[in-house]
Parts: sequence; C-alpha cells; structure tokens
Amino acid sequence: MDTLYIYLYSVFFENKFAKTLFKSCKMWYNFIMISALPPTTFGLKGNDKMSKIRIGIVGYGNLGRGTELAIRQNPDTELACVFTRRDPSSLKIMTENVPVYSLDDIRNHRDCADVLILCGGSASDLPVQGPQLAELFCTVDSFDTHAKIPQYFAAVDESAKKGGNVSIISVGWDPGMFSVSRLYGSCILPDGKDYTFWGKGVSQGHSDAIRRIDGVADAKQYTIPVQEAVDAVRNGSDPELSTRQKHTRECFVVAKEGADTAKIESEIKNMPNYFADYDTTVHFISQEELDRDHSGIPHGGFVIRSGKTGLNGETSHIVEYSLKLGSNPEFTSSILVAYARAAYRLHKEGAAGAKTVFDIAPAYLSPKSGDELRASML
Amino acid sequence: MDTLYIYLYSVFFENKFAKTLFKSCKMWYNFIMISALPPTTFGLKGNDKMSKIRIGIVGYGNLGRGTELAIRQNPDTELACVFTRRDPSSLKIMTENVPVYSLDDIRNHRDCADVLILCGGSASDLPVQGPQLAELFCTVDSFDTHAKIPQYFAAVDESAKKGGNVSIISVGWDPGMFSVSRLYGSCILPDGKDYTFWGKGVSQGHSDAIRRIDGVADAKQYTIPVQEAVDAVRNGSDPELSTRQKHTRECFVVAKEGADTAKIESEIKNMPNYFADYDTTVHFISQEELDRDHSGIPHGGFVIRSGKTGLNGETSHIVEYSLKLGSNPEFTSSILVAYARAAYRLHKEGAAGAKTVFDIAPAYLSPKSGDELRASML
Repeated sequence: MDTLYIYLYSVFFENKFAKTLFKSCKMWYNFIMISALPPTTFGLKGNDKMSKIRIGIVGYGNLGRGTELAIRQNPDTELACVFTRRDPSSLKIMTENVPVYSLDDIRNHRDCADVLILCGGSASDLPVQGPQLAELFCTVDSFDTHAKIPQYFAAVDESAKKGGNVSIISVGWDPGMFSVSRLYGSCILPDGKDYTFWGKGVSQGHSDAIRRIDGVADAKQYTIPVQEAVDAVRNGSDPELSTRQKHTRECFVVAKEGADTAKIESEIKNMPNYFADYDTTVHFISQEELDRDHSGIPHGGFVIRSGKTGLNGETSHIVEYSLKLGSNPEFTSSILVAYARAAYRLHKEGAAGAKTVFDIAPAYLSPKSGDELRASML
Repeated sequence: MDTLYIYLYSVFFENKFAKTLFKSCKMWYNFIMISALPPTTFGLKGNDKMSKIRIGIVGYGNLGRGTELAIRQNPDTELACVFTRRDPSSLKIMTENVPVYSLDDIRNHRDCADVLILCGGSASDLPVQGPQLAELFCTVDSFDTHAKIPQYFAAVDESAKKGGNVSIISVGWDPGMFSVSRLYGSCILPDGKDYTFWGKGVSQGHSDAIRRIDGVADAKQYTIPVQEAVDAVRNGSDPELSTRQKHTRECFVVAKEGADTAKIESEIKNMPNYFADYDTTVHFISQEELDRDHSGIPHGGFVIRSGKTGLNGETSHIVEYSLKLGSNPEFTSSILVAYARAAYRLHKEGAAGAKTVFDIAPAYLSPKSGDELRASML
C-alpha cells in the first residue's frame, strides 16, 4: 500500500586495501536501496512530490468542498481522490486530474490515499462509515453528537486496530478546538468553572428543524450569545446561567403562499429541545431576502474558564478561547486537514486505533520540525 | 527509587483435580505479588496515598510559593520536598511536615520526588540547574528566554536522556499556553498572520531595569496593549504594526530624596531595548502609594490568529486566546503542576528526554482517564 522509494547513496571514504590496488586510499561506494520508508525516516527532506500526504475525501458537500480548499493551503498535502454516493461522473470537483469514485467501490481503491477525511453527517453517515472505513484507511472525521462519542469511539477503535490504522474522531471546533480549550482550562485551573457560548452563527440543525414545519418554504436560524451573560462571565463573577440566560435564537423564515404565519411562529417557539427553552425571535422574509442576506454560514463562540488560585481562592483568572468564523464548514475542514497530517504521522510511527484531539500533541499538526517549532513558535 | 507495591490476589475457580480430593471442584487461590509497577498499570485505582505524584520544588520565591499553592488544588499530587539555596532551617513554607533541603544536597535526596518543578529564573538559575537536575529527576521548568530555547533544549535533552528522565522545558503562558495557541492557529489557518499582545500587566524585567537607575528607590512597570491595534486585528484588517503601535509602557517610580526626577524620566524613556521603542509614561509617586496601589502581579494578554480560507482567500476567520490573570506567578505555577503530571506519566510509559508544550498531548495534563475525558469534555 505504501509508496516504494529508491535511494541512491554515494559515499567517499578511505580504504587501505584500495591503496594496494589503485595507489589511492579513497574510493567512491555507490548503493541503491529500495524501501517503503519515506525519506524523512532517514533525516532526508525529499522532494515535495515524494513527501506529500495523499488525502481522500468521502462525501462532497459543504465540508468536502471546504476540505478540498484547505488541502490547497497545505503544500505538504494533496487531494488524491474523492468518494461519493452520487454517480461519480456527475460530480464536478475543483481540483483537476483527481479521480472521483463511487463510495461502493472504495475497497478497490485502498491504495489511493494515505488518510481519508470523512465529510458525512453525524446523524446517519458517520456511525456507519466511521467504523467501516477505519479498518481500510487512516481516517479523520468530525463526528459531533456529543452524547454518542463514547460508543462511536469504541466502534472506530476496534476497526482501526484491526486494520492497523489511526482514526482521529470528533475533529472540528466543537467538538475539537473548544474541547481542547476546555481541557487545558480545567487542568490549569482545577478550581474553576467552564462556560461555552456559541454564535453568533447559523445552526444547521435548527434551520432544518424549522424547514420541516408545515407551511415553511425555507429558513435560517442564528444562535446568539447573550451579551450580559458573556460580560458577567468575563468579569469573573461566576454566574449560574440557565439555558435561556446564555443564548437567544433568531429565525428568518420564508413562508409558503397562504401559510398561517402565526401558527408557524408558535410552532417554532414551542418546539421542545430546539426552541422551547430559549427566547426566540421569528422574522418572516421573502426567499429573495433570505438568499441575499442570509446565504453565508458564519459561526463562532467562546470557551471561558474562570478559575481561582491562592491560599483561599483569593486570586481570579480568566482564560478565554474565542472564534469568529466567516464559514463554519471551511474552518472545520481546515482543522480536519491539520489532523490528517497528525494521523498520517502517528501511523508512520506505528500507532493504531481511535484517537481524539485530546490524544494528539500539538506538534503533530504542524509541517515544521521540532527544531523549527522551538526556534520560531515557542 | 520507586515505591514497592504489595498486591494480594484471591481467585476462585474450578479445578477438576480438587474434586477428587475435596468433593468440590471450586477452590480459592491466593497470590502475593511485590512490584514496582503502580496499581494503575494493572487497571486498579489504588488508594489516594499510593497514586499521588510526589513533587519537589527547587527555589522558593514567588513561583515556588505559587507551585506550593497549586499542588494543594490537585488532589493527585503532593508536595514532597523543597530545595533552596538559603539555609534550609531559615525557610518557613506553608505545607506542614514537608522537608526543606539545601540545594547543594540534592544528590542525596534523589528518591524524595517523582518530578521536580524548577522555580528559578531564566537568566542565571535555569541555564545551570536545568541540565544538571534533568539527569537526576524528571523536571518541569519555565525557561522563558525565547532566543536561547534551542540551546537550552539541547542541553536539557542530553542530560534527561542520560538519566532516563522526562524534562518539560519552557512551560508557562509565554512561552507555554501562548505558544500552543500560536501553533494551533498557524496549523489550522496556514494562510494567516499571528499577533501576540501582552498586558495589561507588570513586567518584572522592566521594573528591575528602572530600579537600577541612579536615584530610583522603587518602581513598577506596566505593559499595556494599544486598544486601537487590538481592535484592528480583531476586525480582521491584518495591520502591519510596529513595536510602538502595539504596546505602551507605564511606569510608577519612587524617587530617592533629592533625586533629579527629570533626569530619571529621561533615562527611562531613552533606555534602549526596554523603553526607547515605546511610548512611555512616567509617574512619580510615594513608596506608600506604590505599596498600596501596585503591590499585585497581574498580567495577561492575547494571541490572535487572523486567517483566510476559500478559493481566493475570500473568507476571514479570527481565532483568539486571551488571559486575564490576577497573579502571573500563581497562574504560571498552576500550569507547571499540570505539566508535572504529564512528565510523570510519560516517564512511567518509558519516555526520556527534553519536551516542550508542543510535544505533550492535552490528555496527559488531566487526572481523568481517556474514557472520562471523552464522555465529559469532548
């Protein structure tokens, strides 16, 4: 499955026996070695082509397209193949000369990529694809159903170990970078409280829930953190905050002709789990307005750790990690590509099994060497 | 050097031979095992006393005292010993029944701690102590002379490998958590710019520099980020910022009686490296005012990664990590203790050599297991 590398070595060294033959004790020795180990193993840089990490994309939606774009920004990676459930001939991707295969044929293309980035959804795609593909490839995914992570991890871990692959699950910003921030915060300030706020940003799940209501043609939902709550946390007053006190929800809805907007509004505001526990605002707008003003997929949020130190907890500290994202899928896929680099390297080192962002040392995400990182980034 | 653990196992199982003797095929078997491996190796939890990480402190200044306080907040750690260059009998520490030894005797106390936290300064203490002690113990330090990190790393690495120990260098918030944030940011958004701002906070080095001026009795210097610069970066406008445009410096100075304050002010403002490149304000106040209003050691700052994604870099993202610290040394020492846990664990796994925060997977900082972390924090 690995590339084979051909190495030519020329060594110039002294040899006393040579002197008796050639009146010179210095000789050139030339060796050829064929090895599956890449040049970096021997401390050689290799050329770009040789050392590129070949990434395969599974699922070509928003996240798949974002991944394709992110790969272009990372010169040590290249897009090697795309797998789709659609008819491959119908799929037009941005990168030239990259094959598109049917996902059904993936077992016939096991050598096309070093790492697969799984760009399907957490509801139905990943619970099946994650464990299946982890046996065949190193994988990275953004499984984000928080409550089901332990069972998903166990299923992927078993497959990845069987296949001798590394699979990093639940990569993105939440779960992902927010999780890492929560972990660092809680380890550094064990006597403290965690706060996670999301937004302002588009929640795809909530937008979908509105679209399923009778009489709704289209909809976008924004999750918005409550500024007073954020300020109280940042000021170190450690408030107890209810769901309603942390976020509000704002909905932009296109009603079908003749639909009962009052009934739609009431259905949204009283929808359990999604809206009932929040202060929700509903705006009815035209499809043109929705397309013009709400076509982006921005998001963001912050993780705040408020902690105390000192003999009696008299010293306050605030650690905050915040994101302001122009595009949720483009940012998420940029993280996926960085972790694909980590999966590739860990696999080369002989690791196998499922991992999460908690298990990956930051240095594995960077194309730079340890020396370079210490000299330039520490 | 390790603790020895005594394990008692009782096993109840069937044995056909037993039936012929005792008319029962079920028997109890009892084993005693003595091992240097801790209970966690066998998946056993052990009691608190057994699994505590014994930490030694080297140097009992602000950072050493902060470390002693941080250990109290981490129930899986305990303060085991303190080493000082002062007369040990003159040192009064906060924790009862913990021995204080002379640093000169440290070779005679090699079994007193699992990990040493080196709380000396980067200018003269750590360059000597770091390499010396890494051969004898696992260590964690906060070496923060950025330009000398590569050579310090090399020296500590050699010693730590010789001694079979793990030494994590340059731990704290900068270098440390800020470095980790810079690394994550640059790996996720390779097409972007880094900005680091410090403050508002007390710079010990700059305060010391003022105190060395003729006619100065005491002084405190605050480093303050320029709000307009921070706002410009947060808005994604990617400004090019000079040193002067990023930070200002504010000095509170107690002049000796009869000193020429105009001369002092001029000397401060024109001091190369420290002040000449900044807009500096100097206030002359009394010792009482200094003690009353400027006795704390607050600090903080932010690391911002401003990056672009998309086909032509048309999508903007801002990632920000910010700290607001009531006490610089108490926060730094809280980080040191979390990394002492990592050093201890890596050593138990057989690792050796120097490491930095880049090399430590976040999970190593937490007392929780991988299962617990995935279920509660991801």
